[in-house]
Amino acid sequence: MKVLILGIDGYLGWSLALHLADRAHVVGGIDNFMRRSWVTKMGSVSAIPIAEMADRRRAFTRKFGSLYFQPLSMEDYPGLCNVLQNFQPDAIVHLAECPSAPYSMSGPHEAAFVMRNNVIGTLYLLHAMREHAPDAHLLKLGTMGEYGTPDVPIPEGFFNLSLAGRTAPDMPFPRNAGSWYHWTKVHDSMNVMWATKLWGLRSTDIMQGVVYGGWLDSMFGHRDLRTRLDFDEAFGTAIHRFVCQAIVHHPLTIYGDIGKQTRGFLPLADSMQCLTLALENPPDAGEYRVFNQFEDVYSILQLAQIVEKVGNAYGLQVQIGHYEPPRAEAQEHYYQPAHQHLLDLGYQPDHDIEHNVAELIETLTPHRERIAMHREVLIPSIRWQSNTRARARYLGEQIGPAAAE
Amino acid sequence: MKVLILGIDGYLGWSLALHLADRAHVVGGIDNFMRRSWVTKMGSVSAIPIAEMADRRRAFTRKFGSLYFQPLSMEDYPGLCNVLQNFQPDAIVHLAECPSAPYSMSGPHEAAFVMRNNVIGTLYLLHAMREHAPDAHLLKLGTMGEYGTPDVPIPEGFFNLSLAGRTAPDMPFPRNAGSWYHWTKVHDSMNVMWATKLWGLRSTDIMQGVVYGGWLDSMFGHRDLRTRLDFDEAFGTAIHRFVCQAIVHHPLTIYGDIGKQTRGFLPLADSMQCLTLALENPPDAGEYRVFNQFEDVYSILQLAQIVEKVGNAYGLQVQIGHYEPPRAEAQEHYYQPAHQHLLDLGYQPDHDIEHNVAELIETLTPHRERIAMHREVLIPSIRWQSNTRARARYLGEQIGPAAAE
Repeated sequence: MKVLILGIDGYLGWSLALHLADRAHVVGGIDNFMRRSWVTKMGSVSAIPIAEMADRRRAFTRKFGSLYFQPLSMEDYPGLCNVLQNFQPDAIVHLAECPSAPYSMSGPHEAAFVMRNNVIGTLYLLHAMREHAPDAHLLKLGTMGEYGTPDVPIPEGFFNLSLAGRTAPDMPFPRNAGSWYHWTKVHDSMNVMWATKLWGLRSTDIMQGVVYGGWLDSMFGHRDLRTRLDFDEAFGTAIHRFVCQAIVHHPLTIYGDIGKQTRGFLPLADSMQCLTLALENPPDAGEYRVFNQFEDVYSILQLAQIVEKVGNAYGLQVQIGHYEPPRAEAQEHYYQPAHQHLLDLGYQPDHDIEHNVAELIETLTPHRERIAMHREVLIPSIRWQSNTRARARYLGEQIGPAAAE
Repeated sequence: MKVLILGIDGYLGWSLALHLADRAHVVGGIDNFMRRSWVTKMGSVSAIPIAEMADRRRAFTRKFGSLYFQPLSMEDYPGLCNVLQNFQPDAIVHLAECPSAPYSMSGPHEAAFVMRNNVIGTLYLLHAMREHAPDAHLLKLGTMGEYGTPDVPIPEGFFNLSLAGRTAPDMPFPRNAGSWYHWTKVHDSMNVMWATKLWGLRSTDIMQGVVYGGWLDSMFGHRDLRTRLDFDEAFGTAIHRFVCQAIVHHPLTIYGDIGKQTRGFLPLADSMQCLTLALENPPDAGEYRVFNQFEDVYSILQLAQIVEKVGNAYGLQVQIGHYEPPRAEAQEHYYQPAHQHLLDLGYQPDHDIEHNVAELIETLTPHRERIAMHREVLIPSIRWQSNTRARARYLGEQIGPAAAE
């Protein structure tokens, strides 16, 4: 299969390129390298050093054969059309969005940038597919965060709405996102849903949990094949930040004094497994399907305790710290999301988070100094409700319910 | 009350400026005159000749006292902040969006333009209000079209979601829009809802039906006070187009052979009455409320028959024609939207559509030649599903169920 990866230079994009090439698919991609500049703007770096695209391509070519690549912004519509015409993909994986909630909450221009980049980019992509790749399968990345944390079980995308004795089947489940970034994902989901039905496209919308892990088998062989791993407040996600914090002896940053914010998580290898299952089992023309993609549900406190336990086995003497919560989110809530569709396609979850955290510790320990040099990015400063940026106040160790558990 | 009207040069914006000034409110506004250029781009003109803003302001000042005005795009964030600081509004009415479904469906660049103009403009507005007018009341115009035509009754914005024995109260009712324009309104509604709760703003979201009518009492006194009235396929709405068609002896353009597409409608004076009720009864801080704003529900065929009946009384010998449907929409469907909130606030619907259509005929007849000169814009050519623009084929007069009624 010929797979075009939009955002091939990113954490998931580069991993997927390697994983698909390893399965003998033909891979191409575009990127405008914005992830690198956003992280620089946050005063941070990838914890795992990564190569420039030219070197990545050289190492990729040596291992798998050539890699089609175009430097391109999603807002360049004629450029996007050219790439579709030239590469003629069977599938397009859309990973070319700005994926950071805090970044989108850091000011009016950042909010507008993320909204424009994500929503206009996807809108142009839909038009370009209609024109030049109407039979290709669009695999678009949404997020479990689109649903928020409602008091009812979360279905996979759709539900039957009963009201006043009548029923409307397969209505889109109401979204309640928690950042401008998450709202861009909601808007994109609706736009992709509508265009798919209107123009007879094929699409799979992945409501993905938080992905963690730094290493795939296919990255062995050359340092230039490694994918990035961020730990700053905007582009680093919970487990990655916790592991980096543990390694440099910084308290793990739980937001608030409870830590029962609960989300779905999955290891990088599981994400690759799921995306590949979706690609290798495409939908029909005119079909828009939604997969909730995660392995297990954890509270943020549970994650911290796992990192504490595994980290202590490596002698890291992990401390769990509580910080003034920068986000507007429930610190304790009901959370029961369905995730059956990918299991039905054959997804075999790894279910070994301790092993994966241990592997992360081993992968990141050689880069301890690099992380320690940027330790100021470990405490959150972007606040959802206040107008100014200020580092979150330390509330103490193991306070409140955390101490009781 | 000091009311800032964003999009004050438009059909509703200019009408509202006059109506509010007539009620002794202090009025200001911004506009970048894009409505004028979009209609020019459609090869059309306002059926009612309108004055340039300088002349409008002169006539307005003579009748009501001065009018604060700044030429400004909503994408100019510093400019927007300046206006809020200078004018210090008690209320802000957001009419500065591109309101055309067909325009948004006419190509990738038009789709992206409408998406950017509407969504980014509203996002900047929310940020500017947070910074410079956190207590002002935002009256934002959505559309009944956000809901689509589901098989259940449509509530006013929210519903209680019951699933698996649990209930999530006040969930946003799922939207199913039918054009890129309508989706921008959905995205804006969600963005306004979220920012209102997050930042403690006040907002009323008006899901408005299709407004028709060309004349308010406050426009008498000077020709320069009149508001625009469009009849092209993109910016003209059903009743306006039907009346203009009747006046130039063009068959009324029903899309498809059934004509049971059913929507909510309201006269211009009712729209002014409702918006004023919302303004004069503002929500609390942190409150986001939704009003479904329309007077009565009609099918497109019923509207055509009303125009036919009233037009014939003026000797117009009206013909009803059926055309190949350019849009992707159900030609016959269930439609039961609630609209209680404005009635509770004191809205007194006019309920005299025949009188209003007669008034429209009298208002527009003096401009018959102006409409006739642009009669090529009366037949739709922008198609939702095909990639090319082509005038819709004439299917015949009074065919199918239309003949039977």
